[in-house]
Amino acid sequence: MKTNPGRFFEDYRLGETIVHAVPRTVSGGERAMYHALYPARHALYSSDKFARACGLQQSPLDDLAAFHIVFGKTVPDISLNAVANLGYAEGRWLRQVYPGDTLRAESTVIGLKENSSGTSGVVYVRTKGLNQDDDEVLEYVRWVMVKKRDLTVPPPAAVVPQLAPVVVPEALVFPKRLDFSRYDFALAGERHRWADYEVGETIDHVDGVTIEEADHMQATRLWQNTSKVHFDVTQRPDGRRLVYGGHIISLARSLSFNGLANAQMIVALNAGAHANPCFAGDTVRAWSEVLGKAETPMPGVGALRLRLVATKGPAFALRGEDGKYLPQVLLDLDYWALIPL
Amino acid sequence: MKTNPGRFFEDYRLGETIVHAVPRTVSGGERAMYHALYPARHALYSSDKFARACGLQQSPLDDLAAFHIVFGKTVPDISLNAVANLGYAEGRWLRQVYPGDTLRAESTVIGLKENSSGTSGVVYVRTKGLNQDDDEVLEYVRWVMVKKRDLTVPPPAAVVPQLAPVVVPEALVFPKRLDFSRYDFALAGERHRWADYEVGETIDHVDGVTIEEADHMQATRLWQNTSKVHFDVTQRPDGRRLVYGGHIISLARSLSFNGLANAQMIVALNAGAHANPCFAGDTVRAWSEVLGKAETPMPGVGALRLRLVATKGPAFALRGEDGKYLPQVLLDLDYWALIPL
Amino acid sequence: MKTNPGRFFEDYRLGETIVHAVPRTVSGGERAMYHALYPARHALYSSDKFARACGLQQSPLDDLAAFHIVFGKTVPDISLNAVANLGYAEGRWLRQVYPGDTLRAESTVIGLKENSSGTSGVVYVRTKGLNQDDDEVLEYVRWVMVKKRDLTVPPPAAVVPQLAPVVVPEALVFPKRLDFSRYDFALAGERHRWADYEVGETIDHVDGVTIEEADHMQATRLWQNTSKVHFDVTQRPDGRRLVYGGHIISLARSLSFNGLANAQMIVALNAGAHANPCFAGDTVRAWSEVLGKAETPMPGVGALRLRLVATKGPAFALRGEDGKYLPQVLLDLDYWALIPL
Repeated sequence: MKTNPGRFFEDYRLGETIVHAVPRTVSGGERAMYHALYPARHALYSSDKFARACGLQQSPLDDLAAFHIVFGKTVPDISLNAVANLGYAEGRWLRQVYPGDTLRAESTVIGLKENSSGTSGVVYVRTKGLNQDDDEVLEYVRWVMVKKRDLTVPPPAAVVPQLAPVVVPEALVFPKRLDFSRYDFALAGERHRWADYEVGETIDHVDGVTIEEADHMQATRLWQNTSKVHFDVTQRPDGRRLVYGGHIISLARSLSFNGLANAQMIVALNAGAHANPCFAGDTVRAWSEVLGKAETPMPGVGALRLRLVATKGPAFALRGEDGKYLPQVLLDLDYWALIPL
Repeated sequence: MKTNPGRFFEDYRLGETIVHAVPRTVSGGERAMYHALYPARHALYSSDKFARACGLQQSPLDDLAAFHIVFGKTVPDISLNAVANLGYAEGRWLRQVYPGDTLRAESTVIGLKENSSGTSGVVYVRTKGLNQDDDEVLEYVRWVMVKKRDLTVPPPAAVVPQLAPVVVPEALVFPKRLDFSRYDFALAGERHRWADYEVGETIDHVDGVTIEEADHMQATRLWQNTSKVHFDVTQRPDGRRLVYGGHIISLARSLSFNGLANAQMIVALNAGAHANPCFAGDTVRAWSEVLGKAETPMPGVGALRLRLVATKGPAFALRGEDGKYLPQVLLDLDYWALIPL
Repeated sequence: MKTNPGRFFEDYRLGETIVHAVPRTVSGGERAMYHALYPARHALYSSDKFARACGLQQSPLDDLAAFHIVFGKTVPDISLNAVANLGYAEGRWLRQVYPGDTLRAESTVIGLKENSSGTSGVVYVRTKGLNQDDDEVLEYVRWVMVKKRDLTVPPPAAVVPQLAPVVVPEALVFPKRLDFSRYDFALAGERHRWADYEVGETIDHVDGVTIEEADHMQATRLWQNTSKVHFDVTQRPDGRRLVYGGHIISLARSLSFNGLANAQMIVALNAGAHANPCFAGDTVRAWSEVLGKAETPMPGVGALRLRLVATKGPAFALRGEDGKYLPQVLLDLDYWALIPL
């Protein structure tokens, strides 16, 4: 058979590195489409002039667009037969992506654990995004539950990697000449700076977006994500197309502009859960909670650790009394962003 | 509260200048998306070679795309709490926008008049679009009806600016080396030149486009327009998303290619009314009326003053016996365009 | 009347050449949109670095995007009053299209034959796509059935051109420095090379895409195709918008990546039939059959002649016992593609 059936749980070997296919060169086109598909307004990713005033060579591709491109490349090898996308950890953005850059991806299997049912197992991979010079642009750990094809294959030795619960501030990587000391708050859209946010503070981002099939499918295709459930109504018993979880991440992050307009740059992904599925017709809102604050060595630059929650319901509700995510919660993301002091 | 509640009527001061946020660098991506979202076919905005033959450095961003980008930036400060977008006047395009340019916007409050109800008022602003060198790329006056938040605030002294009913031909600004003397009518798509149009003449542009939610939302997001009613079904009692009025302007202008293919360049916006709301599912058509003609100092270049009407019904119907726009009329726009002699 | 009514059968003259309007400059924007609208993954059209390793200057615009742009320009002159798009032959891609290139199109009438009914006739045109230097980028023959406006006009002398049933391998044109001898199969996504495909072999490409109105309309507008039936629900008695046949070609070709990831470059279109209409809501799948193989003079490069079938049903079904296409078959395309040896 010449088509890719995807890998099953027993096809992964601990320590192996998988080179993912279909490198991708980005241009101003990807940036324009990102702005058409999401209500993205962070000035650093909208204006070359603003980006230069902050020490960058020009406005980079949105950090999440870079993430989606790398993630998309991994799908045919990692999650084509995944039952669930279980979590993220130790994500870091290491280098900006500019028009003309070419991205590719590699994943190393760092953990394997068969489920007690014997019908599936959890695969842990550390994925790297690399540019045309083989510089790392980002990395993250993801773990997914993958079906077994052959139930008679004995389970591998269970290895569950020790993952940091949060990327420590010392591990954050900054653009070499990033400088927020002459930051233009008027052009950025809000006056709130690092000192204005307190740990424990919550922000309702107010705006909402009703999702269309064409929107989420175009976005997911743009990232060359091949997961069938996003595109083909025959893939699920309910005849619905599942919205790619990364679409919700970008949507929520874009909505968070309203209240976090100066949290310009994402530098780390500490954790993330796609709490419930999302479908066309859903109206997605977002709220944030400040989980931590850190200083940085860069001039005028502070870091905020933020919880970003996407929801179909009211702000600030997250878990029920049973500790489980409420049914209206779509995403619970924990990340570090850079903001002017 | 860290999110932007928008300004209310009592928050505006006569004479103040508001610097709008989120500057935006454009690329070939915005041009491609414009062609995907509208049936735009004017050759000057499609072909670098055609544009160079007309004296420009390359094909500029569509004049209306430049308008929408500037307009979009004003929304969070001017029309987030607007009840109605009442009118436009004294609009002029002053400089072409090319890939790599960065646009920002400023508005000066030039008029304020509280309504007799005491619950809202009319705000008049003159908005300027500026590029990365602070050159003006366009300007226009817009007035909107904005709610009051605090009804006890006494009304400001009423100031209604004197606005020109039409931009006089002498005030039109032309690209420095614009030259239609070697204009290629075959490549432009029609043979009709300035001399072929008569004042009073009407043209049915024949074609129609049925609007989809994803189309109008993508367009409106591309312009970073944050008005909630375009994106969120919970914002209106009828559960429908209102199509951004500028989407109808671009749609009607693009449809007008069929009969006005040589009316290449928009140089002034004399007046405009969004006569009725438009929703996904509506099939939009357009017709034009020649309102005036003028010579210009540029070689081979004439100007036409055109009424552009977008409608869900038959061509040429505009107002009822009561003088009000008929319910099927969506847009009534009065503009100057440049056309070969 | 100033609008274009389109040509009718009696308006064509044997031997005349029609210069089509609206030249178009492409950028990275068109490439990004192509990836958003189709699940396109062929590495040569995704990565500049991969394309350079194959001897090209950078990643070209997808061959089918170039085809659609040229085709779109012909619509107002050739098929605005067409009843049916009957066939393609002798299609060849002659030169790659890169960002910054400007495309235009010309068609020569090479055949005319009135139907026995006297109400319509078949028009055969040879269309050329040309770049800004007047280099040919592609050419193809297309024939369409066009209505007569004036039934009293006597029929022209019937001329039916002799068309090659297939482009012979000797007639294929290759990029000057194309070289697959150091081809990276891991980055391309599959290991199957020229030698691995056998004449008669069939491949089910497995994946499916459910079509949305916004997707097919955006694509068709991007190619500046003005055929009314794709955009306007009032054009057909059933109130449905017909999906542009070329949309199905691009969709099926993109889906064929899964099993033909290394069939990188389309160099000839031997024949093609839009077997049945397609509408939003349809879920499109694709299968291929290897019809032929040929060697080429380029290092490491072989050619495969492929049948590409788009279907709403199961793979491999094509025609009924009556020899007619089955109702679920949307497209039957015969083309040559280049693949590493």
